[in-house]
Amino acid sequence: MQQIPILKIGRFLLVSIQIDLQDQTVVALQEDLADSIVKTGARGVIIDISAVDIVDSYIGRMFSTIAAMSRLMDAETVVVGMRPAVAITLVELGLSLDGVRTALDLEQGMRLLESSLGDR
Amino acid sequence: MQQIPILKIGRFLLVSIQIDLQDQTVVALQEDLADSIVKTGARGVIIDISAVDIVDSYIGRMFSTIAAMSRLMDAETVVVGMRPAVAITLVELGLSLDGVRTALDLEQGMRLLESSLGDR
Repeated sequence: MQQIPILKIGRFLLVSIQIDLQDQTVVALQEDLADSIVKTGARGVIIDISAVDIVDSYIGRMFSTIAAMSRLMDAETVVVGMRPAVAITLVELGLSLDGVRTALDLEQGMRLLESSLGDR
Repeated sequence: MQQIPILKIGRFLLVSIQIDLQDQTVVALQEDLADSIVKTGARGVIIDISAVDIVDSYIGRMFSTIAAMSRLMDAETVVVGMRPAVAITLVELGLSLDGVRTALDLEQGMRLLESSLGDR
């Protein structure tokens, strides 16, 4: 099973998803991410999915789960780099990504997190 | 063939390598990276290899090639997150990663680039 690296940038954690996500990988990622938020005191999580071209409802729900989990640890989640085809699929699946914010690319995602954090 | 995403963070480009690199993927990455440097005017390239656990001489040379190519376009290259086993393999292969700077993690890599850029 491949592990998805979690990178720290300032107050945020960056997860760039490039591999086809198996259920097992998703569970491991959620646990790793929770550990990393606690260890680093990160205030935001950025999930880059620019390399993802296929999603199913399991992956769709993963974003909401990560966002809900992060919020409990006082970190906000932004999904960045979504391809148009992925957005269309998510809508067709009836997934509205509750509680997940999105941005076009990494830089805009970081700006979004910075502005919502303010001076806290 | 999978494409490796190139993310822009401020003045730098971030490439996080998570898949087993085939020769073809490496060639495509080098071309994408060159295009991105020109398009974004990036001053540095950060290659994260924290998810890479096996390297061969082809991959080893890739880092030097990317660094040389980036330098011609006025961007510096830092390889971050190298695992101890990978460092050992590279030394055993006799690869010294000419012209490539390294740092322990993404944040230190960014600091290294920032300081070597100075106020330019």
